[in-house]
Amino acid sequence: MDNTNYYDVTKWSIGDPYQDIGVVINSIIDDIKKHQMDSDVNNGGKPGAVIYLPPADYHLKTQVVIDISFLKIMGAGHGFTSSSIRYNVPEDQWPDLHELWPGGSRILVDLKADDHDESAAAAFYVKREGDPRISSVEFANFCIDGVHFVDDGTGEPNPENTYVNGKTGIYVGSAQDSFRITEMGFVYLEHGLTIYNADALTIHNNFIAECGNCIELRGWGQASKVTDNLMGAGFKGYSIYAENFAQLLVTANNIFPRGASSVHFNKVTRSLLSNNILHAFYPGMVILENGSSENLIATNHFLRDHEPWTPMQMHDNGLDDLFGLLTISGNNNSVIGNHFSEIIDQEYIKPVDARPVIIHLVAGRENYIANNNVVASEAHAQSGDSAFAAQVDSLLTVEEAAPLQVITVLIEDQAQKNTVLDSGSEQQVHLDKTMNAFRATPTIN
Amino acid sequence: MDNTNYYDVTKWSIGDPYQDIGVVINSIIDDIKKHQMDSDVNNGGKPGAVIYLPPADYHLKTQVVIDISFLKIMGAGHGFTSSSIRYNVPEDQWPDLHELWPGGSRILVDLKADDHDESAAAAFYVKREGDPRISSVEFANFCIDGVHFVDDGTGEPNPENTYVNGKTGIYVGSAQDSFRITEMGFVYLEHGLTIYNADALTIHNNFIAECGNCIELRGWGQASKVTDNLMGAGFKGYSIYAENFAQLLVTANNIFPRGASSVHFNKVTRSLLSNNILHAFYPGMVILENGSSENLIATNHFLRDHEPWTPMQMHDNGLDDLFGLLTISGNNNSVIGNHFSEIIDQEYIKPVDARPVIIHLVAGRENYIANNNVVASEAHAQSGDSAFAAQVDSLLTVEEAAPLQVITVLIEDQAQKNTVLDSGSEQQVHLDKTMNAFRATPTIN
Amino acid sequence: MDNTNYYDVTKWSIGDPYQDIGVVINSIIDDIKKHQMDSDVNNGGKPGAVIYLPPADYHLKTQVVIDISFLKIMGAGHGFTSSSIRYNVPEDQWPDLHELWPGGSRILVDLKADDHDESAAAAFYVKREGDPRISSVEFANFCIDGVHFVDDGTGEPNPENTYVNGKTGIYVGSAQDSFRITEMGFVYLEHGLTIYNADALTIHNNFIAECGNCIELRGWGQASKVTDNLMGAGFKGYSIYAENFAQLLVTANNIFPRGASSVHFNKVTRSLLSNNILHAFYPGMVILENGSSENLIATNHFLRDHEPWTPMQMHDNGLDDLFGLLTISGNNNSVIGNHFSEIIDQEYIKPVDARPVIIHLVAGRENYIANNNVVASEAHAQSGDSAFAAQVDSLLTVEEAAPLQVITVLIEDQAQKNTVLDSGSEQQVHLDKTMNAFRATPTIN
Repeated sequence: MDNTNYYDVTKWSIGDPYQDIGVVINSIIDDIKKHQMDSDVNNGGKPGAVIYLPPADYHLKTQVVIDISFLKIMGAGHGFTSSSIRYNVPEDQWPDLHELWPGGSRILVDLKADDHDESAAAAFYVKREGDPRISSVEFANFCIDGVHFVDDGTGEPNPENTYVNGKTGIYVGSAQDSFRITEMGFVYLEHGLTIYNADALTIHNNFIAECGNCIELRGWGQASKVTDNLMGAGFKGYSIYAENFAQLLVTANNIFPRGASSVHFNKVTRSLLSNNILHAFYPGMVILENGSSENLIATNHFLRDHEPWTPMQMHDNGLDDLFGLLTISGNNNSVIGNHFSEIIDQEYIKPVDARPVIIHLVAGRENYIANNNVVASEAHAQSGDSAFAAQVDSLLTVEEAAPLQVITVLIEDQAQKNTVLDSGSEQQVHLDKTMNAFRATPTIN
Repeated sequence: MDNTNYYDVTKWSIGDPYQDIGVVINSIIDDIKKHQMDSDVNNGGKPGAVIYLPPADYHLKTQVVIDISFLKIMGAGHGFTSSSIRYNVPEDQWPDLHELWPGGSRILVDLKADDHDESAAAAFYVKREGDPRISSVEFANFCIDGVHFVDDGTGEPNPENTYVNGKTGIYVGSAQDSFRITEMGFVYLEHGLTIYNADALTIHNNFIAECGNCIELRGWGQASKVTDNLMGAGFKGYSIYAENFAQLLVTANNIFPRGASSVHFNKVTRSLLSNNILHAFYPGMVILENGSSENLIATNHFLRDHEPWTPMQMHDNGLDDLFGLLTISGNNNSVIGNHFSEIIDQEYIKPVDARPVIIHLVAGRENYIANNNVVASEAHAQSGDSAFAAQVDSLLTVEEAAPLQVITVLIEDQAQKNTVLDSGSEQQVHLDKTMNAFRATPTIN
Repeated sequence: MDNTNYYDVTKWSIGDPYQDIGVVINSIIDDIKKHQMDSDVNNGGKPGAVIYLPPADYHLKTQVVIDISFLKIMGAGHGFTSSSIRYNVPEDQWPDLHELWPGGSRILVDLKADDHDESAAAAFYVKREGDPRISSVEFANFCIDGVHFVDDGTGEPNPENTYVNGKTGIYVGSAQDSFRITEMGFVYLEHGLTIYNADALTIHNNFIAECGNCIELRGWGQASKVTDNLMGAGFKGYSIYAENFAQLLVTANNIFPRGASSVHFNKVTRSLLSNNILHAFYPGMVILENGSSENLIATNHFLRDHEPWTPMQMHDNGLDDLFGLLTISGNNNSVIGNHFSEIIDQEYIKPVDARPVIIHLVAGRENYIANNNVVASEAHAQSGDSAFAAQVDSLLTVEEAAPLQVITVLIEDQAQKNTVLDSGSEQQVHLDKTMNAFRATPTIN
C-alpha cells in the first residue's frame, strides 16, 4: 500500500477479505488512523481514505466499525437480483437457473442477530461521540446482502418470505453530517439503512429492495434528501420512515410494493414529499402522524392494488380500507396535485362493503387539500406463480372495469379549519362543512 | 489480470482495443465466465466484473454481446461535443477548429446496418433467455458515437443531417432487471438506447443528444425511472418512447429540440411525467395514445417555438398546429399544474389562420385537467447560421410580442366525462359542456 | 504514466501535489496536449484524459488553467465538514475536536485575491476562445476549500464569519458545452461556482455550503440543470444566481440558510424552479427580476424563520418583510402549488407591525398564481450556541404558536392582467380587482 490513502481490500495484508471482510476493513481503518496521528498542522487535515471492493463475494463475520470522517467505501456494482423470486422457485429447478445470488461487489452478512442489541447484526456500524459530528462518510456502488430470512414463528411456511433476520446494512448510531449513500444495492436485510440524527444526508440513486425496512431515519434530523431511489420494503416494514425531522426532501423515488407503508412520517415538519411513484398492496401508503405539520405532499402518483403474487397473498399490513391511502394527523400540511389510483376488486375490500377512503385526515387543523384526482375501479387482477408476469398483467389491464365507490377525502370531526378544493364531488368528500372549507370538483352541468 | 474481476481494456492480452474494442470486451466476458464456472457453493455467487475504458478512441467493428449479470462497463468521460454543429460548418473551416470529434472514453461504432435485423448494428447487444432475467448490468460514463449519418434518399442535401445510420448504442433484447445506465454520452446514433421488457431500470444523468431516437422502451415494462437526463432526438425520432409500461417515472429531464416528439407513451399506464423541461419545434411534444391511462402529467414546462437554425428549417415532424402540444387518447389521466409557452409567428402556423391547440384530448373519459397555464404569442425569432446563438437570441426575447389566439384545451366529441378546471377561459376551452365538467379560469370582473 | 490517459497527481513526475497541486495539474494538461498533437486522423479525436486526486490535502498556490475538452478531474471524497461551526468554537476547545478541517480529496486554495480580477483567485479557471466551444469537462467527487474568510472591515468581530476572501472554486470564463459538476464539495469560498455562457450544463448532487455564493450562472445560457444539490450561501450571497438564461431546470435541491437569496433569476425565461426545499432567514428568498418571464415555479417548499444561531444574529440581507418571500418582476410566470411557511415572532418583523408579504408581484402582466398555501405563525424560537441544536429545536417546534397575519399575495398597481386563484382569502390577497382576475380560497360557510 502506498501513501495515497487508497486501499483495495483484495490487496491488504491483514485478514482474508473473502472470508471476513470486516477484519480487513477494520484493520484498514486502524491504518488510516495511524497515518493521521501527526497531522492537523499547517492547515493540514485528516483527509480520510478510500476503500475499494472489486466485484466479488465477501463474507462479513466481523462488524465494520467506522469512527473517522472522510472515509469512502466503494465497489463496482450494486449487484441486485431478486432473491425473493428465486427462493419461491421450487428447489429442484435451481440447477437450471443462470445464477442463484446477488452479485457485484457483494458483502454477505454472516452476523448473528442479538435480541438485546439491534445494532449487533449491522454490517457497518458508524458511531463517534464528541465534536465535531462525524462527517462525509460515503458508501457507493456495492451490495449488502443479508442472504437469508428466517422462520419467525408466525406461520409463514417459507422462512425466506418472512423479511426477518435481525440484520442491518448500515447503522449510524450517532449524529453525523454530510454523509452520502449512492448507487448501492441492499437486499434481504431486515433493515437496509438505519440512521440516527442525520444532518445534510444524501441517499440517492440506490436500489433497496426485498428488505424488511428500507430507510429508517430515527432520532431527529434536518436538511437531508432521499432522492431517485428504487425501493420496496417487506409487508411488515417501512420503505421510508422518518421521525422528528425537518426539511426532509423525498422526491423522484420509485417505491414498489410491498411495504406496510411506503412513507411513514412521525413528527416530521416542513418537509417535501413530491414527485414520487408510490405503489402498494395495502392501505396506509403514506402516513403523517403525531403532529407532522407544514409538509407539502405534491404531484405524487399513488397506486394501490391487490397483491397478485401467490406466495405473498397470505400477508398484508393489517389495515382495512377505511384507514386511507394517505393518512394525516397534523396541522397546516399542503396536499396538492396528487393522483390516486385505487384498483381493487370488491371482494378484497375490508370491512365488507365499505367504501375505501383515499385521503384521511384523522386530526389536525388548517390542512390544505387541493387538486387531487382519484381514480377507483375494480381490477379483475389475476394471481400468478411469477411475481413479475402477474404484476405486469395486472398493471397493464386498464380495461372497462366496474367503477368503485370511494371516499376521496374524509375529515374526522376532531379535525377542523381545513380546506378541501377540487378533490372530489359532494358525494365523495366527507367533512363537516360548518368546520371546514370545501369546494367540490365541478360535475357535468 | 489478477483475480479482482477488474479488466482494463488497454491491458487485456486479446485483441487491440483501439482497432476493435468489441473483440476485446467479448473475450473479457469469456474470461469472466471461465472464472465463474465453479462458483455457487457456500452461498457464493457469480459476482460479475468491471470493465474499464480509459479515455481514448476505441473503434468497434465487432458487436459486444452481453449475457451475464453483474457486469459493469465504465469509462472516464461522457465525451459529448456537438457533431451536428461541426458537420454544418463549411469544411474549409475545419482546420481552424480546436477538435472535430466527441471524446472521453469514446467508442466509434463502425458496424454496418442490416435492413433485416435492427440489432445488428448495436454496439452493445444484451440478451439472455431462461431464468432468472439478466440483472444489474451497469453502463457508466463513456461515450458511444455513431460518427456519421448517411444519405437516406429523402432529399436532405447534407447526409450528416439525416439522423439515419441504422446504428444503436445499447440494445437490450430480452427481459432484464435492475439495469443502470448513468453518466453516459450518446451521439450520432439512429437509436441511443433500445430496451425491451424492462423492470426496475435506471436511466439517470446521461447526455443523449443528436441521436435519431434517444430512449425506446419497447415490449413492456414496469417500475423504472428516466431521470435527470439531458437529451434531444432528431426531427424523425423520439426523445423518450415507452409502450405497455406501468410505473414509469420520467422526471427532472431537460429535453431539447428537435425530436418529432419529446415523450411518446403508447399504452402506458399509472406512470408519472413530471417536472421536466420540454422544448420542441413542432406540435406533438407529448403524446399519450392507445389507451394510455391513469398517468399523472404534472408541473412540466412546455415550450414550443420555431426552428431557428437554417440547416434544419427544411425539416419538421409533419404535424400541424391542430394536433396539440400535449395529445391524449386514454382514460383517467391527471394533467395538473403544467406551463405551456407557444411562441410562434403567425406565418408558420399550419393550417393557415388556424388557432393552435395546446392540450388535445382526442379520446377518453374521466381525464382531470386542472391548473394548467398557457402563454401564447408571436416570436419575431431570427434564423441564424449558428444553432446556439440563434436559439439564445430567440429564447431570450420575451418582448412585447403580439399575442396569439390559441385553444388551450380541446376535447373531441368522442371524449366524455372529463373535467377541465382553471386551464383557460370560456373562449379558449372547446368542449361539450353537456358531456364534460368545466370551470373556466376566472377573468377580470 | 502509461498511454491510457490516466494521471494520478501523486505519481506525476513534475511538481509536488501536496505543496502546489496547480503546478502538477497544469503540467499534466501540457502532457495531454502533447499526446494529442498528431490525432484527428481516421475519425480519431482528442479524447482528453482523467486526472485523479486520491484523498489527501493538496495546497493550490498556482491556478489550474483548463483549455482542453474532455478532461475529467476526479477525487474520492467530497470532504465537507462545517468550518463555520468550528471557527465559532472557542479556540481553547480546538484540541478536543476530532478534526479541524474538511477532508476527502481536498484542495486548499492558497491563492491571493486580486481586486482588479476576480478570476485571479479561482482554483480552476476554464477558458478557451474559438470554435468549437470547450466541451465535456467534468469535475467529480473532490473538495475545494477556501480555508479562511477574512476581515472585510464591516465590523464582524470574527473574520471567519464574513464570507469574504475573493476566492472561487471553479470559474468558467468562456462559452462551454456539456460540462458536468457532480458529487463535489465546496466550502469557505466567496464564490463556489462561477460559470459564464453555459449550454447543457449539469450541476448535480454536490455539497456547496458555507460559501459566500454557491452557484452563479452569468452572461447567458440555456438548457442546463441544477439538480439534487445540498447548498447554502452566506448572508451576503446567492445560493443560485442566473441571468439571461432559458430552459434552466432547478429541481430537487435542498437549499439551507443563510443566503441573501436562495434563488435569484435576472432576465431568466422559460425555466422551471420546482420541487425544491428552500429555507431562509430573510425575505427575498426567490427573486425573479428584470422581466424574468414564462417561468414555472411549482411545488416548492418555502420556509422563512428567524436566525437561531447567536454568532450570525447580527447579520441579515437588509430586506424588510414587505419585500416578499417570492418576488416577481416579469410576465407570464406560473406560480402553482407551492407551500410557504412564515414562522417568525412579531418582535422581529420589519417595519414594526407590518404584515409580512409572501408572494409579491412588483411588476408584470399575465402571471398565473394558483393553489399556493401559506402558513404563518409566531415561533418562540430559541437562540443557541450550537447552530445545529438550535435549528433543530426551532424547526421541530410546531406548537400552538400564535397565528401571524400576512399578505399572501400582493400585486402592485403597475402589475396588471394577472390571475390569482386559491392562494389566500379576500383579506390576505391585495390587488386591484378591476385590473387582475381573482378567486379567493374558499372559507368556512
